[in-house]
Amino acid sequence: MVRWEPGAAERLQKAALELFATRGFEQTTAMEIAESVGLTERTFFRHFSDKREVLFHGQQLLVDAFLAGVDAAPPDASPMEIAASALHSATTFFPAERRAHSRLRQSIIDQNPALQERERHKLASIATTVADALRRRGVEDMTATLAAESGATVFAIAFTQWIREDEQRSFADIAAEVLRELLSLTATASAKLPR
Amino acid sequence: MVRWEPGAAERLQKAALELFATRGFEQTTAMEIAESVGLTERTFFRHFSDKREVLFHGQQLLVDAFLAGVDAAPPDASPMEIAASALHSATTFFPAERRAHSRLRQSIIDQNPALQERERHKLASIATTVADALRRRGVEDMTATLAAESGATVFAIAFTQWIREDEQRSFADIAAEVLRELLSLTATASAKLPR
Repeated sequence: MVRWEPGAAERLQKAALELFATRGFEQTTAMEIAESVGLTERTFFRHFSDKREVLFHGQQLLVDAFLAGVDAAPPDASPMEIAASALHSATTFFPAERRAHSRLRQSIIDQNPALQERERHKLASIATTVADALRRRGVEDMTATLAAESGATVFAIAFTQWIREDEQRSFADIAAEVLRELLSLTATASAKLPR
Repeated sequence: MVRWEPGAAERLQKAALELFATRGFEQTTAMEIAESVGLTERTFFRHFSDKREVLFHGQQLLVDAFLAGVDAAPPDASPMEIAASALHSATTFFPAERRAHSRLRQSIIDQNPALQERERHKLASIATTVADALRRRGVEDMTATLAAESGATVFAIAFTQWIREDEQRSFADIAAEVLRELLSLTATASAKLPR
């Protein structure tokens, strides 16, 4: 489990989210974020290279959660089972008490194309990292990419569902359902391909 | 089949690719591109909003190729079969004679993070468009996204393989192989999920 220390980085992050949501991302400066929690702009830049990075703080912890899931898969697991294990491990990064935070963060990202691009880049780089981990377990090159990308797709769809206003289920339950849907989707196409 | 008229846009595009590849994307101006084929900067900007867009000219034709494949799928096709049909249709956009062009274009994109982001955005928007087309055929929301994203993943992996220096097979053959690999990959995981 990931622990969230009530340190300066976390206080700045929380304040930034609130300011971005109320005033808008573009209209909020690093100094305003820092001052709103009694810190200096200098302290802000000791923790974050720019205000955009506030929204992506902790990304490595998410990557680590995916990788821990790869390691946790039994030696005889198939490539897709390893990807599923990585996905399941990543869901522990999003306990119920993070849902409000994730929802707020996403609403800010949805309003800014540059942030959307950064988020896409983040997901792409997680898929690349998981694919590399699969290769280190001996999974063939293309298969590793396919399994990791499929896992990332399931992750993204499950995340979008998890933060919906009326959603009550856990991230893990939703991810498992989306994964099952992917497996049944591809199963019904196995019989006849267009060529 | 898509036809490439030998018009100004195509001449500018061809010249731009060569200049980007030899001098570098950042180091090449719109005026240099235009002058290299005896055209004016003004003509350049009648065709392209900026030099980055030269590399993404014709994107709508690719989107249309995907959508034509959705339409071509029989009424009783499963969601993944429709996505496969879209994928197969998109491969007609990349005949053997485009391989050198595609290879050159990719080598330019690989050297520039902003171009990589634009390319990721392009692929994401193709997946979104195909998912919407699946929904219009009555496919359920999440299933449509999963099928379209899976098709886009197969497309991206097949494209990367198609432009490899030693690759001889057609885009269609490679895409069919990657798709088969995805189906077999998910089939082996159906039996036991991590939860």
